[in-house]
This record gives sequence, structure tokens and C-alpha cells, in this order.
Amino acid sequence: MHHLSKDMQACIYECLRCYQTCIGMASQHCLEQGGKHVEPEHFRLMLACAEICRTSAHFMLIGTPHHKHTCRECAEICSECADSCERIGDMQACVDQCRRCAEQCRVMAA
Amino acid sequence: MHHLSKDMQACIYECLRCYQTCIGMASQHCLEQGGKHVEPEHFRLMLACAEICRTSAHFMLIGTPHHKHTCRECAEICSECADSCERIGDMQACVDQCRRCAEQCRVMAA
Amino acid sequence: MHHLSKDMQACIYECLRCYQTCIGMASQHCLEQGGKHVEPEHFRLMLACAEICRTSAHFMLIGTPHHKHTCRECAEICSECADSCERIGDMQACVDQCRRCAEQCRVMAA
Amino acid sequence: MHHLSKDMQACIYECLRCYQTCIGMASQHCLEQGGKHVEPEHFRLMLACAEICRTSAHFMLIGTPHHKHTCRECAEICSECADSCERIGDMQACVDQCRRCAEQCRVMAA
Repeated sequence: MHHLSKDMQACIYECLRCYQTCIGMASQHCLEQGGKHVEPEHFRLMLACAEICRTSAHFMLIGTPHHKHTCRECAEICSECADSCERIGDMQACVDQCRRCAEQCRVMAA
Repeated sequence: MHHLSKDMQACIYECLRCYQTCIGMASQHCLEQGGKHVEPEHFRLMLACAEICRTSAHFMLIGTPHHKHTCRECAEICSECADSCERIGDMQACVDQCRRCAEQCRVMAA
Repeated sequence: MHHLSKDMQACIYECLRCYQTCIGMASQHCLEQGGKHVEPEHFRLMLACAEICRTSAHFMLIGTPHHKHTCRECAEICSECADSCERIGDMQACVDQCRRCAEQCRVMAA
Repeated sequence: MHHLSKDMQACIYECLRCYQTCIGMASQHCLEQGGKHVEPEHFRLMLACAEICRTSAHFMLIGTPHHKHTCRECAEICSECADSCERIGDMQACVDQCRRCAEQCRVMAA
């Protein structure tokens, strides 16, 4: 992928890291912990975040100019997901990854 | 898609119905009900079932001969998911849809 | 999915129809025809359209309020894809399905 | 994801690398090159390979024991895709990545 800009490569990297963190923690941490970790709003946000990260990475890899719009939406959802994980607690890895991904997506959306 | 066989059209239809039922009920029924509905093993099976249904449909739509293998795996997971939903109870729509999808996938895998 | 509004049910239906049409025609019609059917810009649009349709349906099925934003983006891409298919010619089924999906997505995005 | 075995972490890594390479090269290299790069059989294999890699990674991240079966299928498709890329020529990055992914998937499928 030598033809992709450094910013885009960084964004694809963060999106796929964030996808892994969100789906992995939802399925292997939140479900095991139960309680507030499986509150519908929080858990749906984790699923939505995993999906939009996957899709934004896909758009950049395909090479469609519409990636700007999916990256903007991805930044929004990642920010919300980071806040939700912070409220729940015990999910710092997910908070940090969502914030890094949001930041990189904002660069691409600009 | 006039060039697809009747069996394949039926299988794509059931896979996408089953995908919708599994991800929809996981996120909007199981999370709301809580309790045994969010037991890790059951919920992961719902997520896995939704994903393999989506992928099997994708393989048939792409037109790759490998769809036979994803359909065989899809039939397995749908059967297991139907059994899990039956044990949990209160998920008859998902039991029925998973069984229909498993049956159609077995036809394609043959 | 008795709890979903009629509009949302219609939108999920059109998104999954459009996903099927776009990925199926890209892989089984455009690749077979070759020539202008595999021009990068057209073919990437088909891939992007299939992906955003799949994602928008997913967001509505999960039950996240962010579906409004993916539906708005989906409407944009479907419109562009319809125009591209019209220019290429010999793709009326895809033109029609993309237009129906765009219309339904606009309802959800409102 | 500290709870995942080293082998599984390596396999998720290779699957997501391979997904990126296949969808990226299909959309940004093969479509640009045209000719034999967009022959239906080759291009469909690229699409199928990208999809099964994405799904196998998803299964491991979810934590479903069915990942063994998707990894076995992933190894098959990656091998075939590597061979196809080798025949086409000018796709060494994809040949190498598909072979690495196939190898790692075989470890998980065992």
C-alpha cells in the first residue's frame, strides 16, 4: 500500500486496532463481567463502534473519496464510545484506543 | 440475479434473514432482557451466527465456489444457535429462522 | 423485529436488497462484461455502495441512533452509484435498486 | 487482548494484514492495471480472500470455538489466492501475505 499517504495509513491502522479492541472487549470482557458492562446502550455502542471502524478502514482501502464521511462518523462514534467506556470503568484500553482512532479519523475527515 | 439457481437464491434469502434475526435479537431483545440472555456463550453464538450468515450470503453473491464450505459451516452454527435459543426460551423467532437457514445451507453444501 | 417502525423496516429491506444487487452485479456482471464495467471509478463505487448498504442495515438492526448518519451517507453513495450505472449502461436493475435505496435512506436520515 | 494465546494473536494479525492487502490491491492495483488483473476468477478470489480473512479475525476476536473452521477455510482460500496472484504476476506482496496468513491459519485450524 505504498501509494497511500502516511495519514491514511495511520488512520487505517487505528481503525483496525479500534475495531479489534471494541469487538474483542465487548465479547470477551463485557459479556464476562456482566452488570453495567452489558447495559444495552453501552454494549450497542461497542458494536456500532466496531462496525464503523471496520467500514471506515474498508473505504480507505478501497480508495473511495467517501472515506471522509465515514471517518467523520467514525470519529463521532469513537468519542462517544470512549466516554461510555470511561463511565463504565475498567475499560481503559478501550478508552485510549477509541480516543486515538477518533483523533486520526478527524485528520482524514478534515 | 437471474443467473443464480433457485436453491442459491433461497439460500441467500435465508442467510440474510437469519443475519437480521440474530443481530437484531441479540442487540434489541437479549440485551434488553439481560440475565441468561446475555450469558457469554449464548451471546457469542448469536454474534457468530450473524457473521457467518452475512459471509455465506456474500460468498454466494460474489460467485465463488468456496460458498459450499461457508454454507456447511453456516449450517453448523445455525443449528447450535437454534439449540441455544431454545434453551434460553422466549426466542422462538430466532429458533425457527436458524433452523430454516441451516436446512437451506445444507442443500448448498451438499 | 416487530418493534421496528415501518419506515425502518422498509429501509433495512432496501439496504440489504441494494447490497445484494451491487456486490452481485459487480462480481458477476461487471467482471464478466469487462471494458467500461471495470473502470476503477465505477467498480470502486459499486464496492463502496455494497459496503455502506450493509453497514447502514447493520446500524438499524443493532438499534443505534447513529443510523441516521450512515443512512444519509448511504443515500449519497447510492445516488452516485445509480448515476454511474446509468452512464455505463446495461445495468438498469442496479440503477433502479440504488434509487429506491437512496430514497428510503433519505427518509431515515431526516 | 492479553488473554489471547500468542498463536491466536499472530493469526488475527495475519488475517487483518491479508484482508488489507487483498482488498487494497484488488481495488487500487488490479482495477488500475486491468487486463488479466480483472479476470473474473482472479478478482473474485481476491474479494473472497479479503472477506474470509475479515471473518476469521472476527471469529477469533469474538472468542467462538468455531474459529477453527473459518481458519481452515481461510487457509485454503489464501493458498489459492497466492497461486492466482503468482500466475498473474506483479503481485508479490499479495502472494507473500496470503502465504503467511495461510500458514498461521493452519496452526489455528489444527
